[in-house]
Amino acid sequence: MKNVPYFFFAAILLCLQSCNTNNWETSVSSPSGNNSIQFYLSSDGTPNYTVAHNNNMVIDTSSMGFDFKDHHPLRGGLQLIKTTLNTQDETWEMPWGEQRTVRNHYNSLRVELEEIEAPNRKLNIHFKAYDDGVAFRYEFPEQAGRDSITIIDEHTEFQLTGDHTTFWIPGDWDIYEQLYQTTKVSEIDAIAMRDHPNLAATYIPENAVNTPVTMRSDEGLHLTFHEADLTDYAGMTLKVDNETLKLTSELVGSDRLGHKVKTALPAKSPWRTIQIADRAGDLIESRLIENLNEPSKLDDVSWFTPMKYVGIWWEMHLGLSTWDLEATQDMNTFATLGQEQTSTKHGANTENVKKYIDFAAANGFGGVLVEGWNTGWNYWIGFEDREGVFDFVTPYEDFDIDEINSYAKEKGVQMIMHHETSAAPRTYEKQMEAAYELMQKHGMHSVKSGYVGKIIPKGEYHHGQWMVNHYRKALEMAAEYQVAINAHEPIKGTGLRRTFPNMIAREGLRGQEFNAWATDGGNPPEHLPIVAFTRMLSGPIDFTPGVFDIGLPTKPNNQINTTLAQQLALYVVIYGPIQMACDLPENYEGQPAFQFIKDVGVDWEQSKVLHGEVGDFVTIAREERETGNWFVGAITDENTREITVDFDFLADGKTYKALIYRDADDAHYRDNPEAVVIENMDIDSGMSKTFVLKEGGGLAISLMVE
Amino acid sequence: MKNVPYFFFAAILLCLQSCNTNNWETSVSSPSGNNSIQFYLSSDGTPNYTVAHNNNMVIDTSSMGFDFKDHHPLRGGLQLIKTTLNTQDETWEMPWGEQRTVRNHYNSLRVELEEIEAPNRKLNIHFKAYDDGVAFRYEFPEQAGRDSITIIDEHTEFQLTGDHTTFWIPGDWDIYEQLYQTTKVSEIDAIAMRDHPNLAATYIPENAVNTPVTMRSDEGLHLTFHEADLTDYAGMTLKVDNETLKLTSELVGSDRLGHKVKTALPAKSPWRTIQIADRAGDLIESRLIENLNEPSKLDDVSWFTPMKYVGIWWEMHLGLSTWDLEATQDMNTFATLGQEQTSTKHGANTENVKKYIDFAAANGFGGVLVEGWNTGWNYWIGFEDREGVFDFVTPYEDFDIDEINSYAKEKGVQMIMHHETSAAPRTYEKQMEAAYELMQKHGMHSVKSGYVGKIIPKGEYHHGQWMVNHYRKALEMAAEYQVAINAHEPIKGTGLRRTFPNMIAREGLRGQEFNAWATDGGNPPEHLPIVAFTRMLSGPIDFTPGVFDIGLPTKPNNQINTTLAQQLALYVVIYGPIQMACDLPENYEGQPAFQFIKDVGVDWEQSKVLHGEVGDFVTIAREERETGNWFVGAITDENTREITVDFDFLADGKTYKALIYRDADDAHYRDNPEAVVIENMDIDSGMSKTFVLKEGGGLAISLMVE
Repeated sequence: MKNVPYFFFAAILLCLQSCNTNNWETSVSSPSGNNSIQFYLSSDGTPNYTVAHNNNMVIDTSSMGFDFKDHHPLRGGLQLIKTTLNTQDETWEMPWGEQRTVRNHYNSLRVELEEIEAPNRKLNIHFKAYDDGVAFRYEFPEQAGRDSITIIDEHTEFQLTGDHTTFWIPGDWDIYEQLYQTTKVSEIDAIAMRDHPNLAATYIPENAVNTPVTMRSDEGLHLTFHEADLTDYAGMTLKVDNETLKLTSELVGSDRLGHKVKTALPAKSPWRTIQIADRAGDLIESRLIENLNEPSKLDDVSWFTPMKYVGIWWEMHLGLSTWDLEATQDMNTFATLGQEQTSTKHGANTENVKKYIDFAAANGFGGVLVEGWNTGWNYWIGFEDREGVFDFVTPYEDFDIDEINSYAKEKGVQMIMHHETSAAPRTYEKQMEAAYELMQKHGMHSVKSGYVGKIIPKGEYHHGQWMVNHYRKALEMAAEYQVAINAHEPIKGTGLRRTFPNMIAREGLRGQEFNAWATDGGNPPEHLPIVAFTRMLSGPIDFTPGVFDIGLPTKPNNQINTTLAQQLALYVVIYGPIQMACDLPENYEGQPAFQFIKDVGVDWEQSKVLHGEVGDFVTIAREERETGNWFVGAITDENTREITVDFDFLADGKTYKALIYRDADDAHYRDNPEAVVIENMDIDSGMSKTFVLKEGGGLAISLMVE
Repeated sequence: MKNVPYFFFAAILLCLQSCNTNNWETSVSSPSGNNSIQFYLSSDGTPNYTVAHNNNMVIDTSSMGFDFKDHHPLRGGLQLIKTTLNTQDETWEMPWGEQRTVRNHYNSLRVELEEIEAPNRKLNIHFKAYDDGVAFRYEFPEQAGRDSITIIDEHTEFQLTGDHTTFWIPGDWDIYEQLYQTTKVSEIDAIAMRDHPNLAATYIPENAVNTPVTMRSDEGLHLTFHEADLTDYAGMTLKVDNETLKLTSELVGSDRLGHKVKTALPAKSPWRTIQIADRAGDLIESRLIENLNEPSKLDDVSWFTPMKYVGIWWEMHLGLSTWDLEATQDMNTFATLGQEQTSTKHGANTENVKKYIDFAAANGFGGVLVEGWNTGWNYWIGFEDREGVFDFVTPYEDFDIDEINSYAKEKGVQMIMHHETSAAPRTYEKQMEAAYELMQKHGMHSVKSGYVGKIIPKGEYHHGQWMVNHYRKALEMAAEYQVAINAHEPIKGTGLRRTFPNMIAREGLRGQEFNAWATDGGNPPEHLPIVAFTRMLSGPIDFTPGVFDIGLPTKPNNQINTTLAQQLALYVVIYGPIQMACDLPENYEGQPAFQFIKDVGVDWEQSKVLHGEVGDFVTIAREERETGNWFVGAITDENTREITVDFDFLADGKTYKALIYRDADDAHYRDNPEAVVIENMDIDSGMSKTFVLKEGGGLAISLMVE
């Protein structure tokens, strides 16, 4: 990373004084001064900015601008009208989350720009400097004689100052479910990832990456690029220039509409964010994304409680049952390229559901998810015209919705709704209200929604403005019916959970199910040690961990590429207010390690990343709300490593009953993944202990207040 | 041990030929020839015998004889009338037990004797030589003009051939609940053990030991002295002559009746047994005691099923609740010498019982025991006149027997009855039939009975003939009502479970409860490694293992002197077809090690003692009936030791899912007893593994068929 010499700042200041009529402040530093943003207009009136961290340039001169459908571009010819500096230091509370209280402390700079020539269009840029990163958004003020803008593209540059090691997925407009790649910026090749046999919808138009994308400089500095508050706008990918090491925003478009964003004025873009951390773990502890969103718009969210759940889902992926009543399809039929169908059993039948309810009740799970309960599944995928296929209120004949819900209620378990839209959002929108009403009637307060396949209508993409608005519409209507949403095949998280806490979790990554049938061997051991520092920065994940029968006997070509101890550790490492124990109930029976899943919290007073390196390993400790119990999770990639946990995070003077779940000495994700050792001992804050994580392994510790 | 020179046998034969008119066979060897018994009459017509093992004398010349109340003694003046040799080789099946099939293979010698002079009384002695020991019993044939005999004492001698290391409890006529002592025979001092502060009834009239008593010679040979088929006779203690190293039978008497045994003719004494083993573990594998009993008299015992159970019991011993409704007494009041009463809660209330039923149902326990459910407990101990105090059909007002039994039935759990007689057997006998009828009405098929205190009427002792007959009467009547008995403060087991399988288990040893309040510090770590080779040879034990909260927080002066891993191992080491998990349900919650208790079998296809030394350690492997799962338990005394388990007992070619529960590296029964490590791995018959048992520690392994 380039060192920023004093004369550089001097030069800028010189320019500012000569280039602008007023002596406006055009730089802002974070409260501690570690991060600073410098704005300036180039000589042709193009907005530019730079970012420095501890006086080292991390984003070199990068320009900003827009192309519009009905106007000429706004990429130059601007003059500075006014700048405003501000300071904010507030603390807000998460109704559930990685921590109870969040400090939102930043200095901001709002730059007001105007075209020098007619039509004198206005553009404001709002910068915020935090100690954990920087952010800026564009504001399009009301303009005389214009009530909306139609954006063809946004040109926000991020000029890197080194060929950083980058942990990236391609800038797919439809899906985030690719494997993370680890390359230098100069080696990023998203195009090469176009043809993925296991994705029902994928579109990678150019060499771009999706966000959050995380980089590590040769000097060990960490940068994560993302966006916050994605509202009525298109999702942003980052186009990569392998030569100049410049990233440029590339919004997801709509082939149908021929633009990328159309929005009423006044308008704001999402925040473009750069989280900056010397220590990789600080990326995870950063709440910058949530801080950049509006406070909650929901007065009361007490109807939702964070919980662990089980459900009818993994058995379909294992080929043991099907979503559709007629059992015409299973994961083997359409996902593993012509294998014979293995199951003729419809999973979501009343008897089977009751089995899961019983298991949930017996083991303290709050919820039971059932996929495949409603009509439409025999045409859900592989058919072009899927409008009107799914019905979100009509159960299959073997699924007695009344009986199931009253049985669950009696057992103290809440059913979790499932809405697979098969990426036909217009069909879903028609039925949405009735669907949420049905849920409310049955006391169901959360729904897992799915958007598998290519979006209908054709020409729309999952991450475009049209879909962003659909996802939002679902969220807002769901809130009216006290329904929380866990969206799969979603738009990425951008901190919206602060504003709409009923956005409880998302998929939006290559999940556990790929381990059951992906033709590329499933998720490699490095997958989750990357995810923790990339995808997880965008918000809660419904990863559905907890596979105990790791060898997947019904899937001879597949297995989970982690040890059992790592499956446990994921409940701590991967944050989500809902956490599935996804394996079959019978696979937990007789397993002492199941105790950890029963014990582990889902809602946290505070979280600490003890150590970690992107793509290698990570150790997180979280304190459960109410109980004060602590849980530690550590995961590693394909390499074994020794970690030392210093228990100084525990409350002083208290002794905690610890249960340690660690890899056995001969454990290995490939050959001996289920070998786990459980140890109990008393632990207090004065202690530290060294543990070995085996290849693909993990460590999970529960520390219960005496 | 003396070597038996050839001329010794020659001399005996010479004597036989000269001393008896006929050339009768008077010796018998076991089928393999390792054990042999030699009978002879001394020159004064006194019966004598010797026993040799592998040509080494283990019992030197020992005489036999009786004193009668109304006759002169029968200790000499006898002549040999006839001897009969026989061979038996049968296999019988245990309805439940340590193994399914038992081979009963022996050679026998019946010696018929007659007084040379009038009244020419007859006495037969029936010897059996087994490969695992020898036995003999006296038969009193019908005698002209005599319909019964009244025995003042039996004089059966066991002349030891060395000053063996002996594992003994005193020859108490009332109780077997003393700590085992380890001394040379010459150092046995039962008198010194007379005053025990924690025993409600104890009577040690002379320097004698109770049986089974086990000895180890300097050469490493093991001998256990006991009796089999104790029917209508008094229990036998063995008087010790510290000088001559001779043991002599001393029957338990009746001060009230002034004799020891009165029985109709023809009559038989119990078998006097000597189990002989080169390897200590062979004592445990020996089924000699059961083989010496009659086949089952019960046609159908399918109404009883071996099971694990929980119950309201340990909480009273912890001082958390009381037996009596009025809560006038608890274990602290009368058992720890004047401590303040700590509890005012009656344990056996309906709500509390339901809690245990729920816990049992949720965790696969078959039964729930409730003590303190019936009226009488406020006068159950410490009162001289306890006749009529207990009522075996009237529940306390807060114990809704109908509701409880129907609730249990609904949950698939069977209630276990409890009958504390407070050692007033006449009161019990009056109500017995009504009590068993009540059980049958509620579908209860087992009862834990208790005989705490001094026997009423005064002058009777727990181990005398009168009580032997009472215990038998209960057993026979219980069988009529399909009730199985688990007697506490019982007469010792003598293999009667073969004849009456409804004699399912007994206490008859210093049990778990002493750990909660004994003023001598509870059971030391060597206790159970002795019990396995002594008390356990007399039959199934209801030891009530499974304490997880080993530190006993409510009992500052007490704790369990084993590690948690040992508590688990006891489910395998200590045999019983009913096994309690005695700790409070809340102490099992969240404990991964509880899985072992849930998994472990209670009924066995076969059992193998892998290794062990009396008083030091023992490792037992047992194969569960039906499932074919194996379980291994190992326990050690106060010394840590390494054991190697060779898994060659497993079925060839099968892989077993093993869960290993072992002491943590820093575990210790005193300072860190709960530190347990649980490991899983695949194990097959070709493997062997070395484990470390820590001080007071243990090892438990479940090996589940895939």
